[in-house]
Amino acid sequence: MQLSEIGEFGLIKKLRAKCKNTRKEILAGIGDDAAAIKQGNKKILITTDMLLEGIHFDLSFTTFYQLGYKFLGVNISDIFAMGGNPKYFFISLGIPKDYNSNDIDELYSGILKIAKKFGIAIAGGDTCTSRQGLVLSGTLVGDADTVITRSGARVGDNIFVTSTLGDSAMGLMLLKRQKAEGRRQKLKFKTQNSKLKTQNSKLIRKHLMPEPIPLKDTSKITSMIDISDGLLIDLSHICDESRVGAVIYKNKIPISGELTDTAKILGTDPVKFALKGGEDYALLFTAPPDIKTTASKIGEIITRERFIIDEKGRKIKFEPEGYEHFKNKI
Amino acid sequence: MQLSEIGEFGLIKKLRAKCKNTRKEILAGIGDDAAAIKQGNKKILITTDMLLEGIHFDLSFTTFYQLGYKFLGVNISDIFAMGGNPKYFFISLGIPKDYNSNDIDELYSGILKIAKKFGIAIAGGDTCTSRQGLVLSGTLVGDADTVITRSGARVGDNIFVTSTLGDSAMGLMLLKRQKAEGRRQKLKFKTQNSKLKTQNSKLIRKHLMPEPIPLKDTSKITSMIDISDGLLIDLSHICDESRVGAVIYKNKIPISGELTDTAKILGTDPVKFALKGGEDYALLFTAPPDIKTTASKIGEIITRERFIIDEKGRKIKFEPEGYEHFKNKI
Repeated sequence: MQLSEIGEFGLIKKLRAKCKNTRKEILAGIGDDAAAIKQGNKKILITTDMLLEGIHFDLSFTTFYQLGYKFLGVNISDIFAMGGNPKYFFISLGIPKDYNSNDIDELYSGILKIAKKFGIAIAGGDTCTSRQGLVLSGTLVGDADTVITRSGARVGDNIFVTSTLGDSAMGLMLLKRQKAEGRRQKLKFKTQNSKLKTQNSKLIRKHLMPEPIPLKDTSKITSMIDISDGLLIDLSHICDESRVGAVIYKNKIPISGELTDTAKILGTDPVKFALKGGEDYALLFTAPPDIKTTASKIGEIITRERFIIDEKGRKIKFEPEGYEHFKNKI
Repeated sequence: MQLSEIGEFGLIKKLRAKCKNTRKEILAGIGDDAAAIKQGNKKILITTDMLLEGIHFDLSFTTFYQLGYKFLGVNISDIFAMGGNPKYFFISLGIPKDYNSNDIDELYSGILKIAKKFGIAIAGGDTCTSRQGLVLSGTLVGDADTVITRSGARVGDNIFVTSTLGDSAMGLMLLKRQKAEGRRQKLKFKTQNSKLKTQNSKLIRKHLMPEPIPLKDTSKITSMIDISDGLLIDLSHICDESRVGAVIYKNKIPISGELTDTAKILGTDPVKFALKGGEDYALLFTAPPDIKTTASKIGEIITRERFIIDEKGRKIKFEPEGYEHFKNKI
């Protein structure tokens, strides 16, 4: 079967069945944001992410510094999604031979900037030549007292997100438009006022340098994931792993003013970006209704179905739509 | 500065200075086979390796099964080189979209074969699309009671290797010749006798599916590395990290009968393959002369110089020649 038929998630499911673990000390493995391994009275968390030029990043959009910052940032987000503390980062690089060593220096400066912010040490890695663009693969090791997986959501829990959604996807769209316009040597945004320009740069920054933010108190959280593929896909992962359903309210999904304004100008629906756009790296979690949190409540966990209630109160079933490798046209 | 000027080891040196660790619990970091982190009374070992199509492997030489076996094998070798036990493997894959899912199945079968042999669990990973050939990145986590680094060699120690050297490099050369001959639709090896054919297949197997073998007793070992880039390079790493010199005896370097015979037919020097050929994944270690071991003694640690003594007793200075990324013509 071609990978484009089975898709990324189909493949992961297949591989997961093949690699079934019987080890008791592995508390979470394939199919969560990070693996969790019991080591004495501590739990060690390990997450790994690969970023490929032309798939995950475009060097005409991002500087090496921004790329380095995001590279470690997305791994930090995975550790936060398990309720953990990031500690040691390992970097594997495949570098085209004609690169200048200053480029790699800049990449490391971005990595070190965010590493310092979160007290992470760069502890090792591997460096080799690549014939086909820049290849980044990172492993982040952390620890946690209590591990939060995707599988603990219970019927009656509320569903929360920690920040506005869709900004990163709109930022990416703006970058793509700018590139296309640059090619045509036109500047369509020329007529925009300066407020809109600032808003655009905020959205673009959210795409290029997302800021992972941990939850301060995770004691009541029942399940958690970071939004990397999009709200609908990532919420579906929680539903799949917890064997529950979910209902979310369209008008409760937090949308930034910047996204609303820009979407209006572009004549598009900002909620679409929030539902299907990836790479926000906000945390999506479930907890009993009595939790005290500053996060936005967007819905509830129910027994089976998965639907959105729109502004007119209509129930619409949702599918896990968003970014999936192999299945997407790229 | 271009990477081809600075070279892989120059780049690693630069990055190492940039990422200087002050964390006490990091016992070994960038510049060793694996990182070692103190966690309670245990030491956790973490190693990461990237294999890129067209650089590290050629899919016209290897099956997906063999590739999977080697992929985990080279990581196991790194953990053994630190005196550790491999335990959890994390797999990141970048897969071209037109692959068949059976190919990935075969790859995993190879990984699982060697994982089972050494009691390793596949604990997680990341899967994405690649536009530029197959990308494999693995992280292997292990543990050790006592960590053996590259930096403990002392003047007066003997130098040992655990198996014959150069077989893998000759195996690779045979594969390249077969490919070139296949292109010319000739079979130069047709006239060979069957004994030689078996020998060739043994050498090729050593390249495609190297078998990592741990040392049973590491109590007296002062420094260790696995031979991945070639004896001269890897011994130089021990000398650099331990700030010592080394003398090795050309006629003491263990060479297999298969390598000797094949080199004779090809009119080439087998010792060259043993000194500069990489990917043998034998262990190279130092220990005081009173150690009892079945490994082959090939030389001694001295204060500063680095030289080979040839069969006529001549002293020849050696440089770290072998495989280095960026600097090599590939």
